[in-house]
Amino acid sequence: MFDSHSVASKLTKDVGSRIRDLREGLRLSQEAFADKAGLHRTYIGSLERGERNPSIETLDRVANALSVPLKDLLPEVKHG
Amino acid sequence: MFDSHSVASKLTKDVGSRIRDLREGLRLSQEAFADKAGLHRTYIGSLERGERNPSIETLDRVANALSVPLKDLLPEVKHG
Repeated sequence: MFDSHSVASKLTKDVGSRIRDLREGLRLSQEAFADKAGLHRTYIGSLERGERNPSIETLDRVANALSVPLKDLLPEVKHG
Repeated sequence: MFDSHSVASKLTKDVGSRIRDLREGLRLSQEAFADKAGLHRTYIGSLERGERNPSIETLDRVANALSVPLKDLLPEVKHG
């Protein structure tokens, strides 16, 4: 469940934007969403900005809280 | 690029099996594959057994070394 805190990359930014879009689509505040996912509100903020390099277990929790398959959080394109 | 070392979950086992299948499909040894992905051979072994909770940046390196989109490493089904 641990993630490294890293400089935003194209991949982490794309995943973060996707999470933000889905959360906003559900009209959930970061706080309400954090509660639902069992994560901290400030963590959600940095995740959505692409400043985290989340583990797949963490992303799975996020996907569950958003009611989407884990795959839906990842971009279609390849990253270098 | 850091991952936590965790007990194998259904998710990490599924991802690990998928990586093993793809690697074997390319007829790459764990050692040759580790070199290609810039990861350690022993890491690849534990990853394939589902004993790692890799970050998305690490999975992206693995996907690149396997020449598949990152999404292809994740299971179709939802995990609880």
